[in-house]
Amino acid sequence: MNVKITGTGCYIPSEVETNEDFLQHEFLNDDGSPFKQNTNIIIKKFKSITGIDERRYAEKHHNSSDLGFLAAEKAIKDAQIDPEELDYIIFAQNFGDVKHNSVQSDAVPSLATRVKHNLRIKNPKCVAYDVIFGCPGWVEGMIQAYAFIKAGIAKKCLIIGSETLSRVVDIHDRDSMIYSDGAGATVIETTNEDCGIIAHETATHSYDEAHYLFFGTSNNLKSTDDTRYIKMYGRKIYEFALTHVPAAMKACLDKSDYAIDDLKKIFIHQANEKMDEAIVERFYDLYDKEVPQDIMPMTIHNLGNSSVATIPTLFDMVKKGELENQEIKKGDIIMFASVGAGMNINAIVYKY
Amino acid sequence: MNVKITGTGCYIPSEVETNEDFLQHEFLNDDGSPFKQNTNIIIKKFKSITGIDERRYAEKHHNSSDLGFLAAEKAIKDAQIDPEELDYIIFAQNFGDVKHNSVQSDAVPSLATRVKHNLRIKNPKCVAYDVIFGCPGWVEGMIQAYAFIKAGIAKKCLIIGSETLSRVVDIHDRDSMIYSDGAGATVIETTNEDCGIIAHETATHSYDEAHYLFFGTSNNLKSTDDTRYIKMYGRKIYEFALTHVPAAMKACLDKSDYAIDDLKKIFIHQANEKMDEAIVERFYDLYDKEVPQDIMPMTIHNLGNSSVATIPTLFDMVKKGELENQEIKKGDIIMFASVGAGMNINAIVYKY
Repeated sequence: MNVKITGTGCYIPSEVETNEDFLQHEFLNDDGSPFKQNTNIIIKKFKSITGIDERRYAEKHHNSSDLGFLAAEKAIKDAQIDPEELDYIIFAQNFGDVKHNSVQSDAVPSLATRVKHNLRIKNPKCVAYDVIFGCPGWVEGMIQAYAFIKAGIAKKCLIIGSETLSRVVDIHDRDSMIYSDGAGATVIETTNEDCGIIAHETATHSYDEAHYLFFGTSNNLKSTDDTRYIKMYGRKIYEFALTHVPAAMKACLDKSDYAIDDLKKIFIHQANEKMDEAIVERFYDLYDKEVPQDIMPMTIHNLGNSSVATIPTLFDMVKKGELENQEIKKGDIIMFASVGAGMNINAIVYKY
Repeated sequence: MNVKITGTGCYIPSEVETNEDFLQHEFLNDDGSPFKQNTNIIIKKFKSITGIDERRYAEKHHNSSDLGFLAAEKAIKDAQIDPEELDYIIFAQNFGDVKHNSVQSDAVPSLATRVKHNLRIKNPKCVAYDVIFGCPGWVEGMIQAYAFIKAGIAKKCLIIGSETLSRVVDIHDRDSMIYSDGAGATVIETTNEDCGIIAHETATHSYDEAHYLFFGTSNNLKSTDDTRYIKMYGRKIYEFALTHVPAAMKACLDKSDYAIDDLKKIFIHQANEKMDEAIVERFYDLYDKEVPQDIMPMTIHNLGNSSVATIPTLFDMVKKGELENQEIKKGDIIMFASVGAGMNINAIVYKY
């Protein structure tokens, strides 16, 4: 028995926030001091490293669970299943629902429950829960669903990754330009076909790294407000990712018994283009190989980093032929790989 | 291969909040109107229904992840394992870390990661994540860990339930008297002994019930503050629980192939004494039986409802002989059962 993805969907919010929209922001260093360069230069430098031109923000009346619901609807339709047949709804998130102009995270009830409610599913045997695992949450949700299927307690699962990072950014922090909103979803099911999840790998590095991504106060030290925002030590994360992600990807591929040349696509978390390129280069270095052309589809230029939503959105777009020069064919060996708060790393090798 | 609990621990905060401490609170109805009775009468009536005399609040410098860590340390010591051997740390929570005098929930990094960091575990293969599943989160974490073990991807898991509900209560809401803080933890492992988890059952009722427990504004409508707090429709929950929890408990027991007379203890979520008594009575009714004496150990009188922490704390206390007239013996068939936000219900039948 194998476990394959039978449906995908995503919801990309319509509100486009361009780099130019940040021109009026007063960016400050962690210590509250102003940058020596002007904002225009900061934004150009940001673009050259991260690759990000623009990102999407959720409409005011939408919360993360709404985006997740909209993506889930599409994935269910794509899978051509009756939602009542779902055994699990797993919602990967990190900040819960944060209403527009609110600083409170709300996860009571769980976002998975809200999606189940909005899908009008009656079946109480469809278990709905949220998983918090940093940006790699959707990949981890897939691994958990796979475990439930392998353990014989599920056959069909819906896994959602949704986040509204625009609601938790510090406008005085340069890194605020990275974050984006969105949702992606997949349906996985048992199958007798020769395809599906072949291997998976997960690691939590928390001894020194637990607080590389954290919730912290504004870089504007003059503010008396104690509101906290998403924060990161970018340089440390960059070094961490380059050291540990390629090794985890290799561990996963080696477990799958496929060779590096069999690999047709890598769907990697979109956090920083230069970092992603360096990770994949090091990964191929481990096999003494050059990085093949078009191995790594990218959406970061237009969609930024939407956390848990990034990979399922990227996969959905490539699968549906919505990304230029990118396609996957029946039988292709592909990899999902992610890194984020925890610090967590995970990967799945999958036969399409 | 069976899966058994090899270690338990709990952390009960030292700060005692008695019913008398609420005498000065101005309780209001949902519509902002004052009660006809005086506060003394309200508190007496509250006590007669819920059984709660006092509850525990975390010390100011502690957050939920700290309580969880303190419980986890004890469970690991009790299990006599090297924490480096853990394959999973699963932290059940609903509000993340809410600092004293803050209204923001913080789960970046996950609370499981924080515990792993504080336990000084180096092994990156120990995967740390949080699960959000309402009050039944710890029971669900146990079921998830059991699935990972059955699927062959884990052997030893640490499951924590911790919450600081005192940080999210509306002081104008009578229901604020229910909520408490605390943490409980368990270590589960594979075993060849004839004991451990025998059956489990989970249900999510969200069609009509999704928002029976929710995050809402204060009953003090004069306040211009839009801060939200834990809120519930108590009457609806009571009716829901009485209709659905006994049936779920029966489904779980019947799956286990044990008879009702084999059952020696029911460790039920402590939300309301009268409700728990009614649930267990209806459960025995389903088998045309009377409720046996001392079947249901209770901690609610002194510990209130500490959400996900309640059952692992209760179990730890009974196991260690810390609850009067309550004990469990090797070979006893016991049940864990919970109900809460989602609305979620779950149960485990376990041979001690």
